[in-house]
Amino acid sequence: MVDDRQRKVVYVQTYGTEARDRMATPIYLAAAAAAMDMDVSIYFTVHGPTLLKKGVPETVRVARVGGDGAPIGHFLDQARELGVRFLVCQPSLDLNGMTLDDLVDGVECIGGAAFNDLCSEADAVISF
Amino acid sequence: MVDDRQRKVVYVQTYGTEARDRMATPIYLAAAAAAMDMDVSIYFTVHGPTLLKKGVPETVRVARVGGDGAPIGHFLDQARELGVRFLVCQPSLDLNGMTLDDLVDGVECIGGAAFNDLCSEADAVISF
Amino acid sequence: MVDDRQRKVVYVQTYGTEARDRMATPIYLAAAAAAMDMDVSIYFTVHGPTLLKKGVPETVRVARVGGDGAPIGHFLDQARELGVRFLVCQPSLDLNGMTLDDLVDGVECIGGAAFNDLCSEADAVISF
Repeated sequence: MVDDRQRKVVYVQTYGTEARDRMATPIYLAAAAAAMDMDVSIYFTVHGPTLLKKGVPETVRVARVGGDGAPIGHFLDQARELGVRFLVCQPSLDLNGMTLDDLVDGVECIGGAAFNDLCSEADAVISF
Repeated sequence: MVDDRQRKVVYVQTYGTEARDRMATPIYLAAAAAAMDMDVSIYFTVHGPTLLKKGVPETVRVARVGGDGAPIGHFLDQARELGVRFLVCQPSLDLNGMTLDDLVDGVECIGGAAFNDLCSEADAVISF
Repeated sequence: MVDDRQRKVVYVQTYGTEARDRMATPIYLAAAAAAMDMDVSIYFTVHGPTLLKKGVPETVRVARVGGDGAPIGHFLDQARELGVRFLVCQPSLDLNGMTLDDLVDGVECIGGAAFNDLCSEADAVISF
C-alpha cells in the first residue's frame, strides 16, 4: 500500500448454527485481518445472527471431518479481542425470529443504508 | 467520500427458489443502496435466475421463522422501481434448464467478461 | 479504466464436491477474468479444497437440470491454462480432513494474513 491510512475489510457472515461446517471460517479470517491492524467488521445476516444468540457461543461446536472442533465462541472471542466489530440488521433478526435482546452483548444493529456505506468505503467485502 | 462520482455496488445472488430463507436479503440490500443513489446491479447466477422465472415473483414467498413472509416479487419490484439493474448469464440459465424467454421482462444477459468488468469497477461486490 | 496497471480479482470458492451444482460458476468466471489479462486468484476455502483432491477433477461432474455436465477438471484446467492461481488455507484442509499432499500439483497454501492482503489490494473480491 502506498498510503498510511488504515485498511478496512467487511466480512459478511450468512451462515449460522444450521451450517456448523461453514460458520468458523469468516470469523477466523476476520480475526486475522484485525491482527494486521485492519479495521474489520463482520456483518451477520441471513442466518448469521443465530451465532450471536445468548448461549450459542459456548455450546455450538464447529463440525469437521473426524469430529467436532472448538465451540464457535472460541473464534468469536478471539475476533472481538482483536477489535472486530459485530454488526447485525433488523430484517435478519426477524427472519430468525430473534430480537436484539436475544443477542450477546456488544452487537450493533445497523440499517441497510449504513451497510452499503460501509461496503462501498471498504477495501474489500468478503462474503461467506 | 471525497469525490462526487456515483458509487457503484454489485450484488451477486446465487440462491433461488430452492432457498426461500436466503433469497430476499440481497434484493432488500440492493434496493437500500439504490435508494441512496448508488448505481446498483444484481447479478443472478448459479440458482439466482430461478427467482426471475415468469410466475415466480408473485407466488414464491420468503420463508422465515414463524411462517411465510412476502412474495419475492415484493422485493424485486421495489428494487427495480429504485433503479436496480437485473443481470443474468447464459451458463446459469443453462444450469437451471432455462432460457431468456422464461424470464420476466427487463432482465439483461451479460457474459463473463462484462461481469468481471463490472465488478472490477465497482466500489463493492457483495455476494449472497 | 484510466490507468494501465493490471486489474486484480480474487474469487472465493466455498463449495466443493458436496454441491455439484454450485462448483463450476466461480471457476468459469475466474477463467473469463484471466482471459481479459486480469491477475486472478481463486481462494478455495470451507469445502472448496475438496475440488482439488487428486482424482476429483477427472471424475466429479457438474450437476445441472437435465443431467450431468462436464467434469470439474475441464473448468479447472481452463482456468489454470489462462494463468489463474489456485490458493488454499490450512484450516480449510483440516476442516475436510485433508493435507496438502492430497491435492493436485500447483496449489499454493497461504495464511489468513496473506489472504487479507490479497483481498484488500484487489479490485474485486467475488465470493461463491
